[in-house]
Amino acid sequence: MKTNKPEHTDFLEATYQKIFPPDSDYREKATARLDQLTMPHWALGDLMDLAVDLAGITRSMTPPVERKQMVVMVGDHGVIAEGVSKFPSEVTAQMVYNFVAGGAGINALARQAGAEVAVVDMGCSVDLSELANAGKIISKKIGPGTSNIAHGSAMTRTHAVMAVEAGIEVANQMAPTVDIFGTGDMGIGNTTPSTAIVATLTGNSIDELTGRGTGLDDEQLAHKKTVLERILQINKPNAKDGMDVLAKVGGFEIGGIAGLIIGTAANRKPVVVDGFISTAGALIACSLEPFVRDYIICAHRSMEPGHGAMQKKIGCRPLLDLNLRLGEGTGAALAMNLVEASVAILTEVATFADAGVSDSESDS
Amino acid sequence: MKTNKPEHTDFLEATYQKIFPPDSDYREKATARLDQLTMPHWALGDLMDLAVDLAGITRSMTPPVERKQMVVMVGDHGVIAEGVSKFPSEVTAQMVYNFVAGGAGINALARQAGAEVAVVDMGCSVDLSELANAGKIISKKIGPGTSNIAHGSAMTRTHAVMAVEAGIEVANQMAPTVDIFGTGDMGIGNTTPSTAIVATLTGNSIDELTGRGTGLDDEQLAHKKTVLERILQINKPNAKDGMDVLAKVGGFEIGGIAGLIIGTAANRKPVVVDGFISTAGALIACSLEPFVRDYIICAHRSMEPGHGAMQKKIGCRPLLDLNLRLGEGTGAALAMNLVEASVAILTEVATFADAGVSDSESDS
Repeated sequence: MKTNKPEHTDFLEATYQKIFPPDSDYREKATARLDQLTMPHWALGDLMDLAVDLAGITRSMTPPVERKQMVVMVGDHGVIAEGVSKFPSEVTAQMVYNFVAGGAGINALARQAGAEVAVVDMGCSVDLSELANAGKIISKKIGPGTSNIAHGSAMTRTHAVMAVEAGIEVANQMAPTVDIFGTGDMGIGNTTPSTAIVATLTGNSIDELTGRGTGLDDEQLAHKKTVLERILQINKPNAKDGMDVLAKVGGFEIGGIAGLIIGTAANRKPVVVDGFISTAGALIACSLEPFVRDYIICAHRSMEPGHGAMQKKIGCRPLLDLNLRLGEGTGAALAMNLVEASVAILTEVATFADAGVSDSESDS
Repeated sequence: MKTNKPEHTDFLEATYQKIFPPDSDYREKATARLDQLTMPHWALGDLMDLAVDLAGITRSMTPPVERKQMVVMVGDHGVIAEGVSKFPSEVTAQMVYNFVAGGAGINALARQAGAEVAVVDMGCSVDLSELANAGKIISKKIGPGTSNIAHGSAMTRTHAVMAVEAGIEVANQMAPTVDIFGTGDMGIGNTTPSTAIVATLTGNSIDELTGRGTGLDDEQLAHKKTVLERILQINKPNAKDGMDVLAKVGGFEIGGIAGLIIGTAANRKPVVVDGFISTAGALIACSLEPFVRDYIICAHRSMEPGHGAMQKKIGCRPLLDLNLRLGEGTGAALAMNLVEASVAILTEVATFADAGVSDSESDS
């Protein structure tokens, strides 16, 4: 019986029950093969670690990663009224149209990586039913944006559960034709709820965690910190209860990301987690079901100062560090190539015995 | 009239004369477009910097990077007699056969990145003419490995010039059908000459630069440092004269890499420089003709401790940091995806005006 989740539904509970640690036999078999590759020991470093992880996650010596699916979760944020972002809320919906037209950063980088892009309306402030009816986006809308968390909860606990369940449903629906998922987000103002989530779940201070989001100046940054302190004081999210944190200071798209990660783990597939907002979703997911962390691949270290603290909490070293701060899943799309490369190392490189190459041990 | 290059040939001189700084107009045009993309300002960080570099190098707003060519330069090293490597010299030739069979790390990672692999025998200790005659490798052999640099020069000055010229010839021959080159190396023992090159050209000490290569233990590492101190004392390479450094403490494959980089720059194409050995070649290239540095993309930060000092000297921030220490061009192959991604950002992402998205400036 799980504690701290008084509202957990049959669906959530059944999903959690499907999540086990990765298979240690496959991890060992992969390690044994990698030890014998025609190269100095573990000479491809982090990509060999990743190959072991992928073998354990997928229970396979040839981890399938060909069918890559980026999922961009979309939501708006009432806290934008506090002046915490340089961009107006309308941009969230405008960017959804940009995604659908294929003109955004995530479209370009997903194409490069051979990944598909799906957009999920979790809580955009604009009515996107036209796009949803045309099959161009997926609608899982919980509401037209969160309430202003500087004055109270972002959403009800019921809505938080619905958001996580919606993310799981997306993963379940896509899983039969997807090998690996990548998370993405779009929501003007969403570094503020994400920072509140990280502060709550890592214990780090607002001062050290808060960054410039889409480009705040010094004065705007100081204001954002003041707003964040107020958000935590007013809402008092319970660090022991991820659903409480999501409901009080989260966002609909952040709940969707948490659900997508949980659903991916339940389907025993790897999920590449993008930047600051996605990692906030991952922290919620790990709080709800700690076993999911072994299914998470951290794509990159973003420029937001709180990102390192989040990744440390999850226990995951990011693959890339390129001063990215876009979101949308762009870092995750970039990392897909490294995931594919790590599988190529495991499956395509010859062993010393195969290639007739002298091992250092056998010749010294 | 160039000084410190008394031996420079007509061919070398003509090549140097073709190398100019990248085009500042194209850099400005690329920057102007990137400033207008539908994302917060410069939100894709280092990849946007790279896109500007590529526009300037290729004199194009759509930098061609589709035809990717890895060139693995091969050479053996007399200094292996001093016990500075865990692997025997025979492994160099064995690995060439592994490259030709497609079973090495570089083969797997080049395939993933959509890059071709060419192997050039610059100075393998084994006769590889069978492979060369069959068209499976390119022969530019200067000699069957360098002399032991713990006792004297690696090669004559004439041979050093021939090695650099051979690399330029490879670049020139391939350039009509290649958009971007990647460097690679294979040569058991070659971290030792590379460290000697870096110590000479950066002024850093042997102690701080020397690493474990393919996996030395503490005692072997201390021995390698002693050997390296002796190498520098005996040879006294002239830091103002890259050709002297190459001749005295270099390697045939390192000269080939330097030439490939110079030849690539002369053909106004970008070159992705791999790890420790390739970067030693790049330092030689920059010493011979400083303008080449603007054509260099540093692929990754290797585990060898001297690598950071080398990249600082070249003035290039590496794209990846994955604890790689293999060489062969593996890091450069991995970085090819990021190069392609940076071009996708420049060429495929919509501007605010194109997409009808509100810019922060125009709405604030």
